[in-house]
Amino acid sequence: MTDKKTEKDFISCLRERRIENDCAVFIGYGNRFIGQDILPQEHKLKYLCGFTGSDGAVVITQNEVFLFVDGRYELQARQEVDLEKTKVVNLVPGLNGICDFLQKKKIKKLIYDGWCVSDCEIRKCKTDYPQIEFVEECRLLNLDKQDKIEVKERSEVYAGKTRDEKLSEQIRQLQLKQADFCLITAADSVSWLLNIYARDLPYSPVVRAYALVGADGSYNLIGDNLKTALPVMSFAEFEQWLAGQNGKILYDAESIPAHLKALIKKGETCADYCLYAKARKNKTELDGMINCHKRDGAALVKLLCWLQKNSQGKTETDIVSKLHEFRQEQSLFFSESFATISGAAENAAVVHYQPTLKNNRRLEQNNLLLLDSGGQYLDGTTDVTRTVALGKPTAAMVHDFTLVLKGHIALASAKFPKKTSGSQLDALARAPLWQEGKDFKHGTGHGVACFGNVHEGPYRISPNAPSRLPLQFSNIVTSVEPGYYKENAYGIRIENLYYTRETPDDENFLEFVPLTLVPIDKSLIDVYLLNREERAWLNNYHQKVYGCLAACVNDEEKKWLAEACSSF
Amino acid sequence: MTDKKTEKDFISCLRERRIENDCAVFIGYGNRFIGQDILPQEHKLKYLCGFTGSDGAVVITQNEVFLFVDGRYELQARQEVDLEKTKVVNLVPGLNGICDFLQKKKIKKLIYDGWCVSDCEIRKCKTDYPQIEFVEECRLLNLDKQDKIEVKERSEVYAGKTRDEKLSEQIRQLQLKQADFCLITAADSVSWLLNIYARDLPYSPVVRAYALVGADGSYNLIGDNLKTALPVMSFAEFEQWLAGQNGKILYDAESIPAHLKALIKKGETCADYCLYAKARKNKTELDGMINCHKRDGAALVKLLCWLQKNSQGKTETDIVSKLHEFRQEQSLFFSESFATISGAAENAAVVHYQPTLKNNRRLEQNNLLLLDSGGQYLDGTTDVTRTVALGKPTAAMVHDFTLVLKGHIALASAKFPKKTSGSQLDALARAPLWQEGKDFKHGTGHGVACFGNVHEGPYRISPNAPSRLPLQFSNIVTSVEPGYYKENAYGIRIENLYYTRETPDDENFLEFVPLTLVPIDKSLIDVYLLNREERAWLNNYHQKVYGCLAACVNDEEKKWLAEACSSF
Repeated sequence: MTDKKTEKDFISCLRERRIENDCAVFIGYGNRFIGQDILPQEHKLKYLCGFTGSDGAVVITQNEVFLFVDGRYELQARQEVDLEKTKVVNLVPGLNGICDFLQKKKIKKLIYDGWCVSDCEIRKCKTDYPQIEFVEECRLLNLDKQDKIEVKERSEVYAGKTRDEKLSEQIRQLQLKQADFCLITAADSVSWLLNIYARDLPYSPVVRAYALVGADGSYNLIGDNLKTALPVMSFAEFEQWLAGQNGKILYDAESIPAHLKALIKKGETCADYCLYAKARKNKTELDGMINCHKRDGAALVKLLCWLQKNSQGKTETDIVSKLHEFRQEQSLFFSESFATISGAAENAAVVHYQPTLKNNRRLEQNNLLLLDSGGQYLDGTTDVTRTVALGKPTAAMVHDFTLVLKGHIALASAKFPKKTSGSQLDALARAPLWQEGKDFKHGTGHGVACFGNVHEGPYRISPNAPSRLPLQFSNIVTSVEPGYYKENAYGIRIENLYYTRETPDDENFLEFVPLTLVPIDKSLIDVYLLNREERAWLNNYHQKVYGCLAACVNDEEKKWLAEACSSF
Repeated sequence: MTDKKTEKDFISCLRERRIENDCAVFIGYGNRFIGQDILPQEHKLKYLCGFTGSDGAVVITQNEVFLFVDGRYELQARQEVDLEKTKVVNLVPGLNGICDFLQKKKIKKLIYDGWCVSDCEIRKCKTDYPQIEFVEECRLLNLDKQDKIEVKERSEVYAGKTRDEKLSEQIRQLQLKQADFCLITAADSVSWLLNIYARDLPYSPVVRAYALVGADGSYNLIGDNLKTALPVMSFAEFEQWLAGQNGKILYDAESIPAHLKALIKKGETCADYCLYAKARKNKTELDGMINCHKRDGAALVKLLCWLQKNSQGKTETDIVSKLHEFRQEQSLFFSESFATISGAAENAAVVHYQPTLKNNRRLEQNNLLLLDSGGQYLDGTTDVTRTVALGKPTAAMVHDFTLVLKGHIALASAKFPKKTSGSQLDALARAPLWQEGKDFKHGTGHGVACFGNVHEGPYRISPNAPSRLPLQFSNIVTSVEPGYYKENAYGIRIENLYYTRETPDDENFLEFVPLTLVPIDKSLIDVYLLNREERAWLNNYHQKVYGCLAACVNDEEKKWLAEACSSF
């Protein structure tokens, strides 16, 4: 109840103080670490309107409050917010799309927090919407937590390269550009570059800090409240340093806050080198990813085997706890990589549904459970979705699951030229659903870090993936996760992680190799809808799962696994 | 030999007069009718270096001449030009990509003809390449033909809408934008809007002229040497008119020459309304397209039946002539819609190969003939490619043909949500080839006009098709034409035209309906590589072909057709 009061107060205050007619205030999801996870108490959208999803934006006008969310979060948003106070708009919550929306509403002035919007984003809006006046107001709504963060050192045993090796590659880039400094504002890039991690975020080991690297080899972490032996500047010190600095500074326009960019006297935009370097896993990282997926697969197998006998009377959150138990038993386990999605029956039709004490429901027999979860291990990161039948699924469930599986296999088994865009690949996973007038409202795949963010740029498989970023390298890790969501009935998603590899016959083509090792529920497959190649792919996959996991589980689980992995 | 001399002279003169170090001159394929066909004598690239393909660009520096062509024309270019004098570069010949190339070559200044480069293109280059100085020089190399063009009136019987109806829609757009005039610079849009055509171009009935439409309903053709009863301004008169004009003029940045754009005092860029309106065929246009495809199919069937008995000793150009004969016999025939591609054996591996007196070769037994051709009929336009076996094809030919067919069917039988981009659809046609490390270096589909340009914007199916232009309407006509080209051996392409239609079950999804009616050579199909759905599609298609054409051919041809269309 306190929350509700505060919310009203904040919005009322804002309106009285700042919002005239034709004026709107934009408040995005994140803070000054653009694109990074936040802490629960930092959730501005939850604070403003009750929405708990992990992407979105709020716009406050004199008379209305809009919550913008994409298709993944639409149903959830409608359930969580007071629809009389907040209008939910299904629109990818980037500032550009929102400006388009606001222009139609005849908004003439938009107030934004220059620390929480990237230089790239605001510049594009200013070009595309000359009729709108953009007014920066820093720290408009600041919920940032101020606790001390302990910065830990990541061992080379897992990172594969020393800090010095990574730094010298970064410095080479800097020299090529004839610059004096490189400012790295993407916190996951900073953590990767300096081989550091932290425990403050619940699901990501990333240290929320910027870094400044000099052409002379010097480097500094930039951030407040960092407990570290590394050289560090506070934000205040850094702003002072910038004021006195005339050297050429490279920055990444996509992740640098607009406000910070404006403080740089002699800057040049340059794509974040770490972003690309870290997406292509080195040998050690790839081995770590392969290994942690075996342990993660064993945890999932234990859970699924347990579930078969114990689903009666259990709730969604029971599954979350049990899975956590099994993961915790695995060596090198660090944390979950995101809040587990455990959706029973119609709850799973909410794409990013997470059970809470409020909405938690009992598993429903003769229906589906959608379980999307992942782990951070010291040697890698996992992300897997399985949809399982409890009791006897309906023919429609089996049919839809098989369509989703056909899409998954079409993409997972695809070979493709190195220049192929993620938007092209995306279509392969949708085509079998499209044939029946079905589709899903989220991307098909995202990059995954090795002990970092479970959603990692720049590569993705999605209708909107830019053609300038084709999947063109080996050792890129991506999810493949088509789904189908029947509102008020059930949700289906089948997600594996894969890494790219050059095909044996032609180095100009890539193929996917599975990392995820968890059986796909055969009781949900209509085998007559699968063609020969699809059956072969599935049997090969299950054979691999059994081969890798049989030794990691107990006898009872092994028996269950053998059955789950038996050939069609 | 004269040509060679002139070429040397022109380039030498240019170098002496204009090209310093660090400087280059850009000469594109077209003239001031950007994106339109040209006459053979207007072919600047042929004049400069001997290349006869219908897309490309030349760049002349102090010491080098570069010819830029995309994958379709690479082999052809290497065969046609003197490689010691001209360097062939495989690069989509847009100015932007070329600037990227030139920047790497440290070019600091680029001279271009402001009449032959669009405003949009030059503006983008100026933004993206601030290090390059762009210098306009008009009529740098002017080969434009000056003959009088007779402007003919197109009957409403074929156009489906009167000039006044089309004009009033155009004027409504103009009023919505609160503009005084609309300048239409795409000649095919002008011809469509005013229901006019001409005979000067060999393959396109388009009148090469601009048009100016006023908010008051007045309109003028703009062009030199037009013989017409419609109101007309010469280019000189139009430039004078612009100098005295203070009204707001809408123009399309994609098709307006940069030089012309600079003469407009009060302009606003606005997408060409006709471009979009004409891509969605009206009922009459669609009926015309359906009907002319029956006649065109009959001509092709006659040719293929004749070929079966008469291929021995024939040359590629014999086929071109014979096909022309059969087309000419059809009612409402106007002209070919492009120069027929008749490629025997390895010649067909050159994607846009056209036989000439110089390279003409005899058909080769136990090999393939690739025949890509089309007709302009008063009621519509066709474009079809068939690859046929002469004698006994090899197993590799059959295998590759079947892969191409699988790709063709995958796309032709696809259902897809209205927002799907042409880049996504493109992947469906390539996936079966990709699985074997194969691909083709051209787009999968292009729009086709109804009695206009055989390549019509804005919709296309290609890896580079922009996501902002999804296939989202019914009644859009597009080709589907995957291929496979084995250098020095053979070429395969299977091309049909289709129109889009909402699926019976869901108006948010589209499907393709075949327009082209020509049997696909079954002797080239390995039926065991086709799955049940693919076989069903092929049998249905052949049944439709037979049903539509049986009555349009003689008894002997009917017998051949029945066999060609018999079910697997």
